[in-house]
Amino acid sequence: MKELRQAIEQQGIGIGKDIVKVDSFLNHRIDVKLATDMGQEIYRAFQGEAVDCILTVEASGIAVAITVAQAFGNIPVVFAKKSGHSNVGTDVYQANVYSFTHQQMNSICVSRSFLTEGMKVLIVDDFLANGEAIEGLLSICRQARSVPVGAAVCVEKGFQGGGKRLRASGLKVISLAVVDGIENGHIVLRKEE
Amino acid sequence: MKELRQAIEQQGIGIGKDIVKVDSFLNHRIDVKLATDMGQEIYRAFQGEAVDCILTVEASGIAVAITVAQAFGNIPVVFAKKSGHSNVGTDVYQANVYSFTHQQMNSICVSRSFLTEGMKVLIVDDFLANGEAIEGLLSICRQARSVPVGAAVCVEKGFQGGGKRLRASGLKVISLAVVDGIENGHIVLRKEE
Repeated sequence: MKELRQAIEQQGIGIGKDIVKVDSFLNHRIDVKLATDMGQEIYRAFQGEAVDCILTVEASGIAVAITVAQAFGNIPVVFAKKSGHSNVGTDVYQANVYSFTHQQMNSICVSRSFLTEGMKVLIVDDFLANGEAIEGLLSICRQARSVPVGAAVCVEKGFQGGGKRLRASGLKVISLAVVDGIENGHIVLRKEE
Repeated sequence: MKELRQAIEQQGIGIGKDIVKVDSFLNHRIDVKLATDMGQEIYRAFQGEAVDCILTVEASGIAVAITVAQAFGNIPVVFAKKSGHSNVGTDVYQANVYSFTHQQMNSICVSRSFLTEGMKVLIVDDFLANGEAIEGLLSICRQARSVPVGAAVCVEKGFQGGGKRLRASGLKVISLAVVDGIENGHIVLRKEE
């Protein structure tokens, strides 16, 4: 997606070999026009599908989940909570997710009330790196017997294995921009197909 | 706001003397139509003001912050991060916030890049109870020499002291629904003025 690629090129910061920092428009400050446009773009990629609900994980995923849900005509968003600091109760589906950013294991959970059998779920997140967050959300869908129709992310780190593994499993995975690597602080974007 | 009051009456759960659970449309599952309408309603309350930026705190505040920002014509959202588990760096404004829900002290922070001197900031959050989160965001605005033009929340717990104290300080505070108490599991809403 052109606007996202431009934002990454102009504002993104590459750190070391693998950290892509897009705090100025996605992860801390949010460019709301861009977020709204990304929601529309993800909608276009999945508009042939019946989608009942958007599933994401707090916190950075929420903004784009909202704009995707708006593009689908205001379907609900469910965001998984990171456990241990929420009053979500105990009647939950739960999965363990290793956070690449924070280098720690998090437990994420969704109340059993909000995902039901046969519900068609589109998973949305800001980043796809090793795929742990999306795997965790897929596990929660399986526990709920909901049907994941696919996953959509803003930025995929193509040099990490998550996207490849998820696609190999048969899941439809859409990313709006793919980072192929970081070279001397410069974020190298894959050419659009 | 009528639609929010209806959602609270139909779906809200009162627990004990002071817990208002609105997980099914605001804090875990998000009713995106209602969130979008709440954004419009908050915009109407502040449309006379020049607002440069919406400031909130992760995670539940983000959804409504986005819809308010959309109503203002896609101004940026900045969300404070809860420290200790973020890669936000060290060049931050920081405040300590006691979380009523989780009964613990959190440190919240905003990168110095994203709030600047003279910037007109509207604070948005899902809940206002004791006012700790908004006080923390006001402290961060003061550190940045930004100008808070007011605060807007979806649900105010009128029986806790936050709203009263913030208004007494001269801040314009808007809440879309006020809970006056919980009686035998029933959430008692204040009549609209």
